[in-house]
Amino acid sequence: MKAYIVINFKAYPTSYGVKALEIAEATEEVAKKYGDVRIILAVPATELRSLASTFKVDIFAQHADPVPLGARTGHTPPEIIADTGARGYLINHSEKRLRLDQINYLVRRGRELGLETIVCADTPETSAAAAALRPDAIAVEPPELIGTGIAVSKAKPEIITGTVEAVRKVNRDVVILTGAGISNPEDVEAAIRLGTAGVLVASAVMKAENPKAKIEGMAQAAVRALKAS
Amino acid sequence: MKAYIVINFKAYPTSYGVKALEIAEATEEVAKKYGDVRIILAVPATELRSLASTFKVDIFAQHADPVPLGARTGHTPPEIIADTGARGYLINHSEKRLRLDQINYLVRRGRELGLETIVCADTPETSAAAAALRPDAIAVEPPELIGTGIAVSKAKPEIITGTVEAVRKVNRDVVILTGAGISNPEDVEAAIRLGTAGVLVASAVMKAENPKAKIEGMAQAAVRALKAS
Amino acid sequence: MKAYIVINFKAYPTSYGVKALEIAEATEEVAKKYGDVRIILAVPATELRSLASTFKVDIFAQHADPVPLGARTGHTPPEIIADTGARGYLINHSEKRLRLDQINYLVRRGRELGLETIVCADTPETSAAAAALRPDAIAVEPPELIGTGIAVSKAKPEIITGTVEAVRKVNRDVVILTGAGISNPEDVEAAIRLGTAGVLVASAVMKAENPKAKIEGMAQAAVRALKAS
Amino acid sequence: MKAYIVINFKAYPTSYGVKALEIAEATEEVAKKYGDVRIILAVPATELRSLASTFKVDIFAQHADPVPLGARTGHTPPEIIADTGARGYLINHSEKRLRLDQINYLVRRGRELGLETIVCADTPETSAAAAALRPDAIAVEPPELIGTGIAVSKAKPEIITGTVEAVRKVNRDVVILTGAGISNPEDVEAAIRLGTAGVLVASAVMKAENPKAKIEGMAQAAVRALKAS
Repeated sequence: MKAYIVINFKAYPTSYGVKALEIAEATEEVAKKYGDVRIILAVPATELRSLASTFKVDIFAQHADPVPLGARTGHTPPEIIADTGARGYLINHSEKRLRLDQINYLVRRGRELGLETIVCADTPETSAAAAALRPDAIAVEPPELIGTGIAVSKAKPEIITGTVEAVRKVNRDVVILTGAGISNPEDVEAAIRLGTAGVLVASAVMKAENPKAKIEGMAQAAVRALKAS
Repeated sequence: MKAYIVINFKAYPTSYGVKALEIAEATEEVAKKYGDVRIILAVPATELRSLASTFKVDIFAQHADPVPLGARTGHTPPEIIADTGARGYLINHSEKRLRLDQINYLVRRGRELGLETIVCADTPETSAAAAALRPDAIAVEPPELIGTGIAVSKAKPEIITGTVEAVRKVNRDVVILTGAGISNPEDVEAAIRLGTAGVLVASAVMKAENPKAKIEGMAQAAVRALKAS
Repeated sequence: MKAYIVINFKAYPTSYGVKALEIAEATEEVAKKYGDVRIILAVPATELRSLASTFKVDIFAQHADPVPLGARTGHTPPEIIADTGARGYLINHSEKRLRLDQINYLVRRGRELGLETIVCADTPETSAAAAALRPDAIAVEPPELIGTGIAVSKAKPEIITGTVEAVRKVNRDVVILTGAGISNPEDVEAAIRLGTAGVLVASAVMKAENPKAKIEGMAQAAVRALKAS
Repeated sequence: MKAYIVINFKAYPTSYGVKALEIAEATEEVAKKYGDVRIILAVPATELRSLASTFKVDIFAQHADPVPLGARTGHTPPEIIADTGARGYLINHSEKRLRLDQINYLVRRGRELGLETIVCADTPETSAAAAALRPDAIAVEPPELIGTGIAVSKAKPEIITGTVEAVRKVNRDVVILTGAGISNPEDVEAAIRLGTAGVLVASAVMKAENPKAKIEGMAQAAVRALKAS
């Protein structure tokens, strides 16, 4: 079993152009050293093609539009994301929530196209509901902790354990991730100790003075937690 | 066990004012005669207060806004719906879809306020997802059949049986309703025979020359189906 | 020329049921005494019918859905609002923004149905754009001041004068109102002195211990300002 | 004065990857031959960076999200579009409508970043409203004709002349484009003859067997129309 670190670039000033390339390169180096940790980069739509064609690390979109190809000005359907070389998409993030029927469309269409889907959710209840749609992964993130630096695994561990319990009732296979406020290696260890496969992290990496050191610290913590479990 | 007939007034020309009063009155008379059938009227927001204060039949809203009371211009929160005397709300209809987190909010808030919730869904998968949120009822409606007069129970019975199967895996108690294209008494019987508690119907009643006869025919069919099951 | 006081009930705890009736009754009494001041109450959808049938004071909706009658579950089209006895609708409030094409639809449809339209806007630029659609009134409200108790007429008078100037270039007839942070009689006077016809007010009335005294103070101020101008 | 041909790639199967490169290359060759015609390609977000870095022809986005940089998962703010090398964005297309305040934000922010903005609108009234926000260009497109192959300049020329008249009352400088159903060189000539600067075209090019011939035919027609005017 692998540990997961999903880095959400969001639309931070470091999320695009040269800075995005640097963080992707640093990630690639870390990923090579820690084979038991799968690192995924969720990047802006504009960066998908260049990053996916340059790096071996898994590149995901941060959203996909639940529409087919065709007369869809300003939309990015799953088919176009697949063409960029991306491996999947993160959807339903609290900053880009989707309707239930749209999540279902995107999970199903992703499966047909060979794209992996990570569905974000805000509570144990919505995590279980999303898990019923059979995506590849669920990331539970209480919105009130996102970007605070206060890890959900510390502030509200019962949300993590409650999510694992609720999700497992409807889906035995889905990967479960812990998000919101993940800042330090200890938060990664706690996420794995509480029964999830890893973390969804954003500002802690994207705003770090030394993103590579931050990612490496988290990867090491993930390895430690895997061994302990 | 009771059979259900939920009549969605939508925004048809008969959905408000005098016509709405007439249909509510006709429903009330039918409801008195068929005690084993629960008839619910989902009416426009503007009609909630007058209908709920005039009739004993259950009045529901067709939507609720997933926000608390306060500075929310143009919104209708659950708290205001409760004050009108309505008994619950229909949500996530294909003409008014909601985000997953919003459905969860409305189901939870409804429960706290003593309001019943019926969540519409388009497929067995989304029905199961919605059922994981523990509303009072689920109504499965393939959008492509809504308003066609082609009953889902005839055209795609496997959607109904598939929904019952998928929903029961995650929720044993939730009431399941069959929607989309319900036009005739036979459609009501088929819905119950296929394992659901009844129907969600709209145009067949709202555009009927004689709404009372239409409702009564459906109520009789429901009683027949109950006995046969 | 009349002065305007538009009271937006929003979804405050006082916006519905008995409290709403009390505020409407108080307004009616004030309105009778101050014939030069037109007072409009923008109320929740659920209260339109009962308030419009009980009181002579002008009742407006806080929003209308830009759709025709028909299969529109959970929507409130202009035609239904007209049927309740309401005289018009407030649209595009910062808490319920609309697309440009939707505002145009609602202004045009309102005109056809004999409903008045007040379009809210956030800046002089969007106020001018909205005025180009020829609604009955424009209300300029910088969103950052809404609900603060800091009147725009005090904090940013240049937004009011800039709006009057920008709007008059494209529309000579539209009524212009000042919103956001209106709390006291002086704010009403300032709004009229700066060249608008009156105010859009919400929390100052809806949260007042004595709403009638608050409304009456504002009506008196409006009369004073009219005489001075 | 230059004529304009804006080619909206939408999300057609030819809008991304190798096909998109081919159409961009063909456009570049045509653009070199017809110096009086400005050709703009509005491409999917995923293609902005590679096309803008490879070709000299003007690359535009088909949409921009009206948010600042930061914690905005799944959004593409104007700042990121600027970084890709794109020269501007098309916004408010009928397939991706925006709120009035959002259009205003994007026009203003585009101006600050040195990005050009083309705002689509559906009627003379909304075109005038959009023009009051001072974008670089307005494209009027009656939605019912989009994708039909029936040119608005033929079917409803009064919409074009009415738009020119309404827009010029509020903005003397804005470029006005004719969209919806543009299929042939004659449609381009008609658009210019009716007083606009050119066309917004999509399926006629994107679904053409020979896109280069289609673009070149339109460019020649534009040159003819310029001389005749």
